[in-house]
Order: sequence, then C-alpha cells, then structure tokens
Amino acid sequence: MAPEHSLTLVVTDLVGIFVFAVTGALVAVRKELDVFGVLVLALTTGLGGGFIRDVLIGVTPPAALQDSRYLLVPVVAGILTFWFHPALGRIEKAINVFDAAGLALFAVAGALKAMDVGLGPLPATVMGLVTGVGGGMLRDLLAGRVPAILQRGELYAIPTAAGAAVAAFGREVGFGSLLVATAGAALCFVWRILAMWRHWHAPMPRGSASV
Amino acid sequence: MAPEHSLTLVVTDLVGIFVFAVTGALVAVRKELDVFGVLVLALTTGLGGGFIRDVLIGVTPPAALQDSRYLLVPVVAGILTFWFHPALGRIEKAINVFDAAGLALFAVAGALKAMDVGLGPLPATVMGLVTGVGGGMLRDLLAGRVPAILQRGELYAIPTAAGAAVAAFGREVGFGSLLVATAGAALCFVWRILAMWRHWHAPMPRGSASV
Amino acid sequence: MAPEHSLTLVVTDLVGIFVFAVTGALVAVRKELDVFGVLVLALTTGLGGGFIRDVLIGVTPPAALQDSRYLLVPVVAGILTFWFHPALGRIEKAINVFDAAGLALFAVAGALKAMDVGLGPLPATVMGLVTGVGGGMLRDLLAGRVPAILQRGELYAIPTAAGAAVAAFGREVGFGSLLVATAGAALCFVWRILAMWRHWHAPMPRGSASV
Repeated sequence: MAPEHSLTLVVTDLVGIFVFAVTGALVAVRKELDVFGVLVLALTTGLGGGFIRDVLIGVTPPAALQDSRYLLVPVVAGILTFWFHPALGRIEKAINVFDAAGLALFAVAGALKAMDVGLGPLPATVMGLVTGVGGGMLRDLLAGRVPAILQRGELYAIPTAAGAAVAAFGREVGFGSLLVATAGAALCFVWRILAMWRHWHAPMPRGSASV
Repeated sequence: MAPEHSLTLVVTDLVGIFVFAVTGALVAVRKELDVFGVLVLALTTGLGGGFIRDVLIGVTPPAALQDSRYLLVPVVAGILTFWFHPALGRIEKAINVFDAAGLALFAVAGALKAMDVGLGPLPATVMGLVTGVGGGMLRDLLAGRVPAILQRGELYAIPTAAGAAVAAFGREVGFGSLLVATAGAALCFVWRILAMWRHWHAPMPRGSASV
Repeated sequence: MAPEHSLTLVVTDLVGIFVFAVTGALVAVRKELDVFGVLVLALTTGLGGGFIRDVLIGVTPPAALQDSRYLLVPVVAGILTFWFHPALGRIEKAINVFDAAGLALFAVAGALKAMDVGLGPLPATVMGLVTGVGGGMLRDLLAGRVPAILQRGELYAIPTAAGAAVAAFGREVGFGSLLVATAGAALCFVWRILAMWRHWHAPMPRGSASV
C-alpha cells in the first residue's frame, strides 16, 4: 500500500478511536463517574475492541501499546468530554454518524488484520465484528449495564458483521484489499445510518413482548 | 492418539460447545435480547472458556478461530434456540445432563491442554476449571447478572475442579492421557449429576443467611 | 539485580497478592457467595491485574501459572477470609493500608515489566495502572457492581498511575530500576494513604451532584 494510503488509514483509525472514546466518556459522565472513570471508559471504548482482537489473534503487544498516539487520542477525547459534555449532548446525532463511520472502519480493518495472520474468512468476520463492537461492550460492562448491542435498538452489530464479511470473503476470492475494505465499510456505514433513520430492528424470539 | 480417538474428541468437543451454546442462547431469550444477542451469548458461552484458557496459556489464535466448525456449531445452536426455545424450555432437565457432560469434557480437555504447553498440575487444574466454567461466567456477565456459579446452588465448580485435578495430577504421576481423562470426566459428571439430584450445596461463610 | 533483591521482590509480590485476595474474598462474603465464590474472587482479585498485563504484553503463560506459590497464596487468603471474616471486618483500616502497599508495588512492578518487553514509558504507565487496579475491577464486575475505582471515593487510581509513571519515565531517562521503583512506590503509597486520611476526591464532571 502506498504511503498516502497508510497515512489515510492511521488518520481514519485515530478518528474512529476518538469518536468511540467520546461515546465511552459520555456514558461515564451520565453515570456520574469522576474524571478517572471518564478517562478509563474513554480508553476502554476507544481501544478495547482492537485489544480483544489482537489478544485473540496473538498479535501482542497491540499496536495501541506501541504507538503513543493511540493512547493520547482517547485521553484527549476523555478530557474534552469531561469539560464540554453539555455541548456534546446537543450534537448526539452527529456523534452517531461519526460512530457509524468508526464502526465501519474498525469492522473492515479488524477482518483484514485477522486474515493477515492467517485466519479464514469466517473467523476473520467474527474478529471484524469484535473489533467494531468490543469496545462498546466493555464500556457497558464497566458502566454496569447490559451491553447496548445485545438489546433492542436499531441494527448495529448486523451491519458490522456484514461489512466485515464483505471485506473478508472479498479478499478470500481474490479482490484487492482497498476495494474490499471500501465496499465493506460502505455497506456497514450506509446500513447503520439507514437503520437509525428508519428505526430498523433485529427480529426478537417468539413470545417476547413486541417492541 | 489414534485417529479414531481424535475424531471422538472433536465430536464430543463439538457436542459440549453445542450444549453450552444452547444454555447461553436460552439466557438471551429469557432476557428478551434480539437475534443478535442470542447469537452472541451462544458463541460466548460455547467458546468463551476455551478462549480464556488459550489466551492465558499463549496458544493463539485459539483452535476455534482456525476450524470453522467450532464457529458454526454455536451459531446453529443459537438459531435453533431462537426458533424452538419453548420446546427447549420443556426439556431443561435433559439439557442439564448434557451440560454436565460438556462440563466434564471441557474440564479434562482444558487441564490436559495446559499440561501439553508445560504448566504444572495445579495451574493446569485451574485452567481446566476456567475452560469448564469460563463460558458460563462470560454469559452471565454479558446478561447483566452475577455469575451463577458464584452463587448458591447445586455444586457446579467444585466437581469441575475435581475432574480437572484428577486428569492433571493423574498425568503428572505417569498415567496415560486416555485413562486420566476418562477418570476425571467420570468423576466430574457423576458428582455434578448427584449434586443436582440430591441438591448438594457448597458451604457458606459463617453468618450468612441459611439456604 | 542481586539475589536478595529478587527474594524481596517475590515476598512483597506475594504479600500484595495476599492482601488483594483478602479484599476480593471479603466482597464475596458480603455478597453471600459460597466457598467457591470466595475462592474465585480471591484468585481473581489477587492475580487478575497481572494476568491482564501479561496477556496484553504477550508474556504468556503469566508467571502466576508457572509458579504454584502464586496460586496457593490467594487460595490460602480466601480460606482464611472464609473462616475469619468477622475478625477481618474489624481490622479494615489495617487492610486498607496493606492494600495501598500492594497497589504501590503492583504499579511499579507492572510498569517496569512492560518496559522490559520494549514498551515506551506512556504505555508502560498504563500497564502499571492495569496491574494495580485490574484485579479489583474484575472483582467488582464478577460481584455485579460498577468497579469501585470508577466511582466517587478517595483517590485510588490517580496515585497508582502517578507511581507507575515515575517508575517508567524515571527508567526512560536513565535512572536505575531500584531507585525508580522505590520512588514510584513511595509516591503511590503516601498519596493513597493521605487521600484516605484527608478524604481527597477526584474532580467530577460539571453538572454532577456535589459529593
């Protein structure tokens, strides 16, 4: 990959971490945690998905422990949220759009990184999903609530898995990384945005109370 | 180990994963999670114990990420539970017997795998315990409840640890793998079944309310 | 490092694990868990922080799985707490002082171990923090409560991070390991004791109810 692509990847990666970290810090503020709790949830939400993936695929220490920018970005996101959370609360829709973008990027990056270490396309799809949703699940566990993605709400995990699958199976059949990453991320992002806009939900088991 | 033994091991392993995944999916259905939540709890409960063990003993990526059958089995278990959970609720006793079988197998397999990478028999026993109960603990954490095995109830973890210890210390003193695995699994399975049948409980700290 | 220093390190390490394990077992007793729940929380609280650090920095299996003393100490701590918890409840202040000592040691040991495998001083500080507070966070998650360190209370994590930072950045600029470990541990310990004595709290986000 040419240097300008690598730079693009790092920048979008850091943007994704930043937005995820803001969502973690906002949860901490709403739970009335102190400044340390805000920083921990910012770090965990921004970096947790990638940490779980890297530990599972055996790539340790994770990249975020080897490049200080990956630690500084969620710390800055946490501090900004700590000070400016009333303003952030007013732009929640914009944050959701950025969150969808981060999700799309993490899903395809996680899936392709798993294939780089030799995993098949199905496990790589699972790793892409873990990369996208793992940080938010850790955030919710630490904040003492059932992970949001397991509960009723607009589709979140299914578009993530679909985007990761497009990237993983696309590369498996021979397409280039940039093409499958773009296609997978676009699918995930557009589907997630449509799900928020049109209030699409995943099916519930029979016998559950209707939504 | 002769090929027919290996095949037996894989089949019993997959059966154990299937049954654990069903228990995870049933918890998700009762918590009224959506189809994705059902699949996540099925995957986590079926594979979580082995993942924690493999990450701790440094065998990454875990086998379940290298052989797609290990991912497909809990997915199928989750989908079946999603559709047929009323029927599964009626055969809960049968599920508990299969769960005891899965527990017995996971305990001895986890302990022996830990010894294969050079751990002593005491840490290997802990790894066997983690393999057996780790998936259920993750299931309960994600479902927002204190892990069932930490709470009052019929003996669950103690038979698991005992079975793992028989396998680990048995091999340490020189018995064959098949012998110690059979003895350890039989001890765990029979003890667990008796505990359910006779309502055996673990001791409580002094001063706790009586059960 | 001379042998007498290594022995000192192992002894203080085991003392730290013992005290942390007692705090975990006390939480289990208060939650009315059974004897197994007490042992699991003792093991998790005593060893969890080091396990998370070792898994993240890729040093697996963790030392605690290779040296049986590291498993026996929290088991003994759990059994003692199970039997003598009324007496332990009466010396809670003494336990808090030992806990501060364990925290100080874990923070600097974790940071220096991370630097030993090549991490920079900022990630090493994070690893020192994880080593110090990770076990207690796992304890609280398993016990079904939001981790104590994320909530209002006397400063706990910030002295830990400061002690780890002194050790990591001190070694980075060339000071000896023993000097930076002593300075970092002393800072963490004294700050934590002062915070308990003078009821120092971390800042809260704007708009939170005052403490």
